[in-house]
Amino acid sequence: MNKLLDQKSIETIRFLSADIVQKAKSGHPGTPMGAASLAYTLWTRFLKHNPSNPNWVDRDRFILSPGHASALLYSLLHLTGYDLSLEDLKQFRQWESKTPGHPEYGLTPGVEVTTGPLGQGFAHGVGMAIAERWMAAHYNQDDHQIVDHFTYAIISDGDLQEGVASEAASLAGKLKLGKLVYLYDSNRIQIEGSTDIAFNEDVAKRFQAYHWQVIGPIDGNDIDAIDEAIRSGQMETEKPTLIICKTHIGHGAPTKQDTASAHGEPLGEAELNSAKESRNWPLEPFYIPEEVLAHMRQAIDRGKLLEKEWDRKWHTWKESNLLLANKFEKAINAELPGDWEEGLDDLFSPSDKPMATREASGRVINALAKHVHNLIGGSADLSPSTKTIIKDAGDFNAEDYSGHNFHFGVREHAMGSIVNGMALHGGVIPYSATFLVFSDYMRPPIRLAALMGLRVIFIFTHDSIGLGEDGPTHQPVEHLLALRSIPNLTVFRPADATETAEAWRSALLNQAGPTALILSRQNLPIFDRKELAASSETQKGGYVLWESGNEPEIILISTGSEVHIALQSGKQLASEGIHARVVSMPSWEAFDSQPDFYKQSVLPDHVRARVAIEAAIPLGWEHYVGLDGAIIGLNHFGASAPAEILYQKFGLDVENVILQAKKLLKKQ
Amino acid sequence: MNKLLDQKSIETIRFLSADIVQKAKSGHPGTPMGAASLAYTLWTRFLKHNPSNPNWVDRDRFILSPGHASALLYSLLHLTGYDLSLEDLKQFRQWESKTPGHPEYGLTPGVEVTTGPLGQGFAHGVGMAIAERWMAAHYNQDDHQIVDHFTYAIISDGDLQEGVASEAASLAGKLKLGKLVYLYDSNRIQIEGSTDIAFNEDVAKRFQAYHWQVIGPIDGNDIDAIDEAIRSGQMETEKPTLIICKTHIGHGAPTKQDTASAHGEPLGEAELNSAKESRNWPLEPFYIPEEVLAHMRQAIDRGKLLEKEWDRKWHTWKESNLLLANKFEKAINAELPGDWEEGLDDLFSPSDKPMATREASGRVINALAKHVHNLIGGSADLSPSTKTIIKDAGDFNAEDYSGHNFHFGVREHAMGSIVNGMALHGGVIPYSATFLVFSDYMRPPIRLAALMGLRVIFIFTHDSIGLGEDGPTHQPVEHLLALRSIPNLTVFRPADATETAEAWRSALLNQAGPTALILSRQNLPIFDRKELAASSETQKGGYVLWESGNEPEIILISTGSEVHIALQSGKQLASEGIHARVVSMPSWEAFDSQPDFYKQSVLPDHVRARVAIEAAIPLGWEHYVGLDGAIIGLNHFGASAPAEILYQKFGLDVENVILQAKKLLKKQ
Repeated sequence: MNKLLDQKSIETIRFLSADIVQKAKSGHPGTPMGAASLAYTLWTRFLKHNPSNPNWVDRDRFILSPGHASALLYSLLHLTGYDLSLEDLKQFRQWESKTPGHPEYGLTPGVEVTTGPLGQGFAHGVGMAIAERWMAAHYNQDDHQIVDHFTYAIISDGDLQEGVASEAASLAGKLKLGKLVYLYDSNRIQIEGSTDIAFNEDVAKRFQAYHWQVIGPIDGNDIDAIDEAIRSGQMETEKPTLIICKTHIGHGAPTKQDTASAHGEPLGEAELNSAKESRNWPLEPFYIPEEVLAHMRQAIDRGKLLEKEWDRKWHTWKESNLLLANKFEKAINAELPGDWEEGLDDLFSPSDKPMATREASGRVINALAKHVHNLIGGSADLSPSTKTIIKDAGDFNAEDYSGHNFHFGVREHAMGSIVNGMALHGGVIPYSATFLVFSDYMRPPIRLAALMGLRVIFIFTHDSIGLGEDGPTHQPVEHLLALRSIPNLTVFRPADATETAEAWRSALLNQAGPTALILSRQNLPIFDRKELAASSETQKGGYVLWESGNEPEIILISTGSEVHIALQSGKQLASEGIHARVVSMPSWEAFDSQPDFYKQSVLPDHVRARVAIEAAIPLGWEHYVGLDGAIIGLNHFGASAPAEILYQKFGLDVENVILQAKKLLKKQ
Repeated sequence: MNKLLDQKSIETIRFLSADIVQKAKSGHPGTPMGAASLAYTLWTRFLKHNPSNPNWVDRDRFILSPGHASALLYSLLHLTGYDLSLEDLKQFRQWESKTPGHPEYGLTPGVEVTTGPLGQGFAHGVGMAIAERWMAAHYNQDDHQIVDHFTYAIISDGDLQEGVASEAASLAGKLKLGKLVYLYDSNRIQIEGSTDIAFNEDVAKRFQAYHWQVIGPIDGNDIDAIDEAIRSGQMETEKPTLIICKTHIGHGAPTKQDTASAHGEPLGEAELNSAKESRNWPLEPFYIPEEVLAHMRQAIDRGKLLEKEWDRKWHTWKESNLLLANKFEKAINAELPGDWEEGLDDLFSPSDKPMATREASGRVINALAKHVHNLIGGSADLSPSTKTIIKDAGDFNAEDYSGHNFHFGVREHAMGSIVNGMALHGGVIPYSATFLVFSDYMRPPIRLAALMGLRVIFIFTHDSIGLGEDGPTHQPVEHLLALRSIPNLTVFRPADATETAEAWRSALLNQAGPTALILSRQNLPIFDRKELAASSETQKGGYVLWESGNEPEIILISTGSEVHIALQSGKQLASEGIHARVVSMPSWEAFDSQPDFYKQSVLPDHVRARVAIEAAIPLGWEHYVGLDGAIIGLNHFGASAPAEILYQKFGLDVENVILQAKKLLKKQ
């Protein structure tokens, strides 16, 4: 190895990153400068990647968990030859540039995951490593390792303080994810000063307690030490590896190194120039020595060669495993098998006994899993309640990575990040499950799934006061609106088993974003679709389930378990000679995305006598009923009592719907 | 000690708990039966409490973190003589009973905190222990320990899997909270089966890494061992203590002990009876041996005596510390000092330079802290950005517990739970701070603060795309609505410095629930109140800031930074001869709670040409503008670019407001 060239390359990364931030007059120079040696060593000596094809299936995954250090990642991507020009670097943090403030998945070639909210990158990586093991278990054969890559991350002090990292680390150790290698950029500085003010735990010991291999502390600027540590990480196959690297935030900045002021603002021209001067570096911004560029761009040829080798292996394998190979290709391309919907239409019959939508969902999962081989998931220790077990499909664990059922433990937050990581890896369609009230624990990853546009299915059962006796701590009232508020998340709250099947169908078809399925604990009658609108209407998000005449005097709109109350109310109004229309509105997002003429056909502008019924806070329903309608909901927390009593006490019953409807009609 | 009586008492707790659940036909018998010995030993030998006065200031605090085991707590409260009758126990999980499914603070005497969502109890206890140390540092004198109590908890496997517990544990170790003693009910069973399926970490080692004293594992049914362990916990003053107790879920249930089926449903009469038979226990439900009741009700006299002794100490102390004692009493009674508002009115002048509301908030905090001595708080490693430091008031740390400024580390979730715990303890008015986008990390404790009705102030800065370059990971768009959706949480998004002062005033005056203050990163002009409505109108949540005539043709409604756009637009409309009214609506909750006539005076029913402007998702604003108004917001995530460019690109500017307003007027 050429030590001098190594050093020059590292300095190029440092100054390029600092220049990027300086030019933008905004950003975080400190961590890129401090972690440059780690990143350089990993990217030039270990990372299996192909800059010409950032989507090569068997590439190593790299995560920059402290996403604020994005300038580091952009420098690496540019220097190793990804489709990210020097001009792009100069557009850092500008409108419509490929170099936003924090790395964004889908926007910049080579960015594997959107990071920024601390702890998330750490946990997303665990999901990627899990997906790798699952794919390996299903597709590798003794002589052909089609899926065989590492998941690397640079993580920070801040990541390790976040609970989600603790949850994910514990699970990674339990699952013996040996192909996970994390470099801990320990610079001992956080925004409020030294990490000593809030963080003095023994990180090594903590990770040993999680059954990780812990290496270091090593000098984070000693590339031989880094090299050796990563090698040890690769060789340890039974344990994830944490390499503790002592580094210096703002490395080389004469007055700001090792201070919090190097963290979140440009160094300033004077400081930056004097840093460059002290290293005999040209002051010219964005200066990249030719030999450094040539050296680092070797990644292009190396990458092509690596993928070519893999391709050869793949084609040999494919010849003797045609069916499996087709399956693999479909999975990787996120395509569903041709027969994926088989059996869905006949799953439920109106003559079946009333059934909770969580139970219906469980049956749908099992029907789907027969054909959609890569549908996998699990629950945060609630599977008997969330009904999310795929029967006879095994558990995913360290002894057998081929199982379809995941036990995330009581770790909702990590569960969310991990299913995201699985989706990011590709090849699998992941779902998670817990009670709706605990969606609060996992909002950060739900948001990231929506922001990244991942096909992840978040299952939330026990969706209202309908869970009864467990009381207000377990009764969601605000969570429906809180989820509906997230852009690009599609929320479905089906009213019966048939709507549940359709909601699942819609979730699998939605490649552009996550779906939240909101399911009841309590049993609900199954609609007789011969007397009501077809269940396929569910896909439109909202539809006329039933009406007593063509010109409605009043429209009752509802979701989930309350649709049955609305339907009964509508029929009673009709029996009293009032033309009523009952709209089932399982998904606001799906309905709102319909063409105007359709929306008008369901909710004609001139019919303003509208009553919304939902066992949740009323806020938000004005979107459909306006200022002149009525909303029957709960403007407060729930209570501990049997569900039927709660519905009655809180006025969620036919009697009150009729009352409110008549009031509205009188007003007009 | 009378071993036989001990044993009989423990069995009473077990069977009473199981009977409670059996009668309700719903609930969790397993943990009460398994942890009975722990609870018994703690409550009869150590817990300093006065059942006749559950609010005695210097009582030990006890937290049942696995709140689903509520039957255990209710049994203890009844047996030790709290105001909780046998009849109350029989009403378990019924409408309006004092014994809901999960313990609820404020409802049941002796319940210190609402628990159920796992991990929260653990972290709330850390907050209580912090408040205890802070109060001790301020009020104790060498010869008078006025504040000197322990915080105990029973915690479960599930609690330890939650990230929030990890965060809180790490901070508790750092802060050397020696008066925190937690009994870990390690029954190695979770809902999906053995904890082995997801949780094999070395808990002892992990807590040692956090600098806790770890005792055990001990036999969780050996009361001598428990006794000794708690004693050691009390004696260790530099470290929090974790006592690992091996227990058996469903202890004594012949077929269900040590199985997940003992967790979440009644044992069934047959199983329960055969458990009783095997212990020669009368089958009669709710049977309490007289000698057990007599033995455990000694807590009443002991408690009275304990409080009396403390009272004596207190009165002696008070005589020589009258001023301090008054302060203490006021603080404990949650009263504000007489001069608390002093200086607030003159803090800001329209001639001041434009100022971010986070900066204004920082000034308000410092003005308040001069008089409100027990206003304390801090940030999750963002204080330079959130502007939440109280100057010259010191840091709270292990070397000095009197400091007012807290460094929570990058631990938003634990921060939320800890400030709740501080408020629950009483004597302090706590605030927390982070960026608005990270409110997602702390929703579970925000919800619990609202459910418990705690005066906690959650500060959220960087409240919109106005933060600019950091991009969509850091730009909240859905968080305002997500917070507004939580019942009993008051959200204030002030438009300038003067509204910020009023929002703070309102937060301190609200004893019945938490307040979220939503603050800008960017500078905003300060309103000239001589030309506009008085700033005190802010308290009403929404008010007419300015209008061009008495009869508005159009109403522009806005919050926070966008009020300035609304105001400018209103003036421009007026200059074109259109009567415009500009409504500043900093708090939906405060406005909605005003009398109807006031609301009508601001938003007259007949004026339907209404435009809402807020740099957030439009959903929810129909609450004020209905189906016929217009909403200018963002129905998508933000982007990385300078703030002014984002505002312009997303149509959040005067031009678009005017356009939308005119469109509306034309329609009418």
